[in-house]
Amino acid sequence: MARSSGNRRSRSGGRAGAASRRGTAVIEQMPWNPPVNTDLPTEPLTPEGVQAIHDGAMRILEEIGVEFLNQEAVDILRRAGCTVDGENVRMGRDFVMEWIGKAPSEFTLTPRNPDRKITVGGKNLLFGNVSSPPNYWDMELGTKVPGTRDMCRNLLKLTQYFNCIHFAGGYPVEPVDLHASIRHLDVLYDKLTLTDKVMHAYSLGKERVEDVMEMVRIAGGLSHEEFDASPRMYTNINSTSPLKHDFPMLDGWMRMARRGQGLVVTPFTLAGAMAPVTMAGAVAQSLAEALCAVVLAQIINPGCPVAVGTFTSNVDMKSGAPAFGTPEYMRATQMTGQLCRFYGLPMRSSGVCAANVPDGQAMWETSNSLWAAVQSGTNMVYHAAGWLEGGLIASPEKFIMDCEILQQIQRYMDPQIVATGPDEIALDAIKSVGNAGHFFGIQHTQDRYTTAFYQPFLSDWKNYEGWEVAGAVWTPERAHLMFKEIIGSFEAPPLDEAIREELADFVARRKSEGGAPTDF
Amino acid sequence: MARSSGNRRSRSGGRAGAASRRGTAVIEQMPWNPPVNTDLPTEPLTPEGVQAIHDGAMRILEEIGVEFLNQEAVDILRRAGCTVDGENVRMGRDFVMEWIGKAPSEFTLTPRNPDRKITVGGKNLLFGNVSSPPNYWDMELGTKVPGTRDMCRNLLKLTQYFNCIHFAGGYPVEPVDLHASIRHLDVLYDKLTLTDKVMHAYSLGKERVEDVMEMVRIAGGLSHEEFDASPRMYTNINSTSPLKHDFPMLDGWMRMARRGQGLVVTPFTLAGAMAPVTMAGAVAQSLAEALCAVVLAQIINPGCPVAVGTFTSNVDMKSGAPAFGTPEYMRATQMTGQLCRFYGLPMRSSGVCAANVPDGQAMWETSNSLWAAVQSGTNMVYHAAGWLEGGLIASPEKFIMDCEILQQIQRYMDPQIVATGPDEIALDAIKSVGNAGHFFGIQHTQDRYTTAFYQPFLSDWKNYEGWEVAGAVWTPERAHLMFKEIIGSFEAPPLDEAIREELADFVARRKSEGGAPTDF
Repeated sequence: MARSSGNRRSRSGGRAGAASRRGTAVIEQMPWNPPVNTDLPTEPLTPEGVQAIHDGAMRILEEIGVEFLNQEAVDILRRAGCTVDGENVRMGRDFVMEWIGKAPSEFTLTPRNPDRKITVGGKNLLFGNVSSPPNYWDMELGTKVPGTRDMCRNLLKLTQYFNCIHFAGGYPVEPVDLHASIRHLDVLYDKLTLTDKVMHAYSLGKERVEDVMEMVRIAGGLSHEEFDASPRMYTNINSTSPLKHDFPMLDGWMRMARRGQGLVVTPFTLAGAMAPVTMAGAVAQSLAEALCAVVLAQIINPGCPVAVGTFTSNVDMKSGAPAFGTPEYMRATQMTGQLCRFYGLPMRSSGVCAANVPDGQAMWETSNSLWAAVQSGTNMVYHAAGWLEGGLIASPEKFIMDCEILQQIQRYMDPQIVATGPDEIALDAIKSVGNAGHFFGIQHTQDRYTTAFYQPFLSDWKNYEGWEVAGAVWTPERAHLMFKEIIGSFEAPPLDEAIREELADFVARRKSEGGAPTDF
Repeated sequence: MARSSGNRRSRSGGRAGAASRRGTAVIEQMPWNPPVNTDLPTEPLTPEGVQAIHDGAMRILEEIGVEFLNQEAVDILRRAGCTVDGENVRMGRDFVMEWIGKAPSEFTLTPRNPDRKITVGGKNLLFGNVSSPPNYWDMELGTKVPGTRDMCRNLLKLTQYFNCIHFAGGYPVEPVDLHASIRHLDVLYDKLTLTDKVMHAYSLGKERVEDVMEMVRIAGGLSHEEFDASPRMYTNINSTSPLKHDFPMLDGWMRMARRGQGLVVTPFTLAGAMAPVTMAGAVAQSLAEALCAVVLAQIINPGCPVAVGTFTSNVDMKSGAPAFGTPEYMRATQMTGQLCRFYGLPMRSSGVCAANVPDGQAMWETSNSLWAAVQSGTNMVYHAAGWLEGGLIASPEKFIMDCEILQQIQRYMDPQIVATGPDEIALDAIKSVGNAGHFFGIQHTQDRYTTAFYQPFLSDWKNYEGWEVAGAVWTPERAHLMFKEIIGSFEAPPLDEAIREELADFVARRKSEGGAPTDF
């Protein structure tokens, strides 16, 4: 099995041995091996239920329409045959289905390190780091503080370090010590030098999108033609629910569509606030908002890669606060999965919680959302590691705790666990032990014990007394110590020095030009 | 929806209002309403895989045999046609299938309060409290101590208090301050007076089983005939893996079978220790050990109610320590579910973790095991609340934290969440809000907001600042405060005074007779 062969490589001083000298041996983790979700999805909707939600989404697009606060987008949609009234755009279901039918059901994203290429769609299950919290919390600070570039860099190091993180999301924390006009330049420089995984660009104005595409192109050592030839990165846009797409998001969406890069549209439909209080209505509205953006992208560049995101949860009706990882969230995610399969589109969901600190509540809410991602057939799991307080806080301890769950999901999908050949039924082994004795020492066990079971890096399986002798350390404190060790010994992935200089020059030039406007 | 109508009753001072004066209003919890598992089970095995494990289990029974360390059981099995060699009993697959075919696929258990009747089998999903840890831990003690009668009583109060706990397991902590000879008498007295839910008897010698059956009969105000007429309680036995059933367990099993009470057999097959290192082999062995006990029960009393339990997990190959809530545990549980459906027998699994304290690890391990119970189609979930350290510690904080997950599972199964009628698609509501505004104030929301979403009792959904102002209390501390409040205001369920006296007299008499021998 792969995990153990990793261990063996590590001991034998091979490739991973070299890596361990670079510091990756703080923990023994599973190798890079994005899971394939072999479970049949959990489908709470009957076929009639799927039709009812589809019909609801279509009637929203036909009868109510979505506002596109971007004249270029409106013009494109009008010319393609939509009914336009000012910024309101309506479109018929046949039109919608025809255009979304052009989107691929599966696509690849290839970062600067082609070994980190990922495939979005099908049964592929991919995890990304927490994205965009304005604040940071760790055990040492013990309180919530605004994010900084240093904190952002540390979380990027975790993003690179953990093999169960397959793509980089947005900024793992907003570095508010960097001026908004040049933040994207500095963070993308950090991202591209500290990680070699798939990159994301915020659709927040022309300059940010174009700069990031250019930096990803430079980092990959690609010509413009090579960059355009296949998806190298992606963006994620959110609609302004209810039923509105704003200017900069649409602008980035269209720029990326033209260049054939990855597109994800994720309405943030909190049931009872920006969407109906009923989950089926919230899902229908979310799909309507997503599908019309998919249509726009396909008109611009038929066949360009698009995924539909879901962020349908509910508000706490006592306080109005958003709730995450709830039963309603799980069902909405599963329902959206059914509809994504109906439309033949890849799907994105998230790892989420409302908890403010990495405690028990954080883990049951996060577990609920991650298992809902698995059950729904999600392809891209955003915020899969490091999210607290409904996305307002990024935490390195939470990041590491979540990675333990992600690794377990990766192992859970290993078909070896459920193999039923004669070697696994093991009748001879059972016969040899008979009605007495144990299986510890027998050959069947000896041949398999190093690879038979999931080996955690953070879970402490010692008994209470052993755990007490080792300092009685609770999970978040253990995660904090691990965080310090990983950061302390982190070494960045290889990058050609000429490319690094070209990136630095690009950043310097664009800063001298003033970066991006901040009036978005 | 039921939860909210409970709230309404509470405010209007009705039945639940009266209950709240008795102290049940410490939290607003969902009403007693055992969930019906509407999800299709997760099935990692192909039909061929199911056959392979079935064939493995049958060959174990045919070719290797199971030791029955109980002459009476051996004689019964020999007379029925099994091949006996000393204590080793072998049986053919046709014989096995014929006898297990007589067991019902579903049965009821009716405790002294018939409103707490439960149905085991089908799509029913039932939760029981942690059972049998010798030790106790809470936030106030901050350390692991041997269990006492007081601790046991407090955990029984939680068992009664939480509507999401549907049956009482074994002792929620072993009260080691009670002498083993009379422990069952005192604890059963406590159980029967502090709770009105389904009771369990340990199969640890004739006296314990007979005493408990008698006390359950008395508490129910039943004649012997009425007690025998339908299942009023249950036992759970564990095989001594590999492939052995010991004397007292079989003795209790047979006594309960004769009187038509509930039977659960749960092999404890730790892969790599008492079972093959391969999960399919461990599951096959577990099933062989369980099914031969089912056969014995059916020969004694054809049609008597039996469930098959699974406790297949793995050891940590580094330390030999048992691991719980792992990917292997989840898959073994799902595989066992497929085989239980193949055999047409109800299933038991567990809520488990290896963690020593109620922290993040405890919750991801427990979440894994509880969702595996859901995915496997489990009917009875033992240890669903309160378990730590692989079952060696019971904790009231963990109990309450687990109940939050259990309530969420109950809500998750509410078909209302996934309803897709016109009221739920809510096109008119979406139309009325259009491209601006929000859904907070509209009639569609107002009509539904009190019942639309899961309302937690322990999760804190405040934002960080609100949580900080409220004391910055982490989950286990919140659970501890709740524990104190629940215990402080607990009132026992009604019990006829004459019955209480009869129970007390029975206990006094049996104590004067010396209770049960302690040489088992």
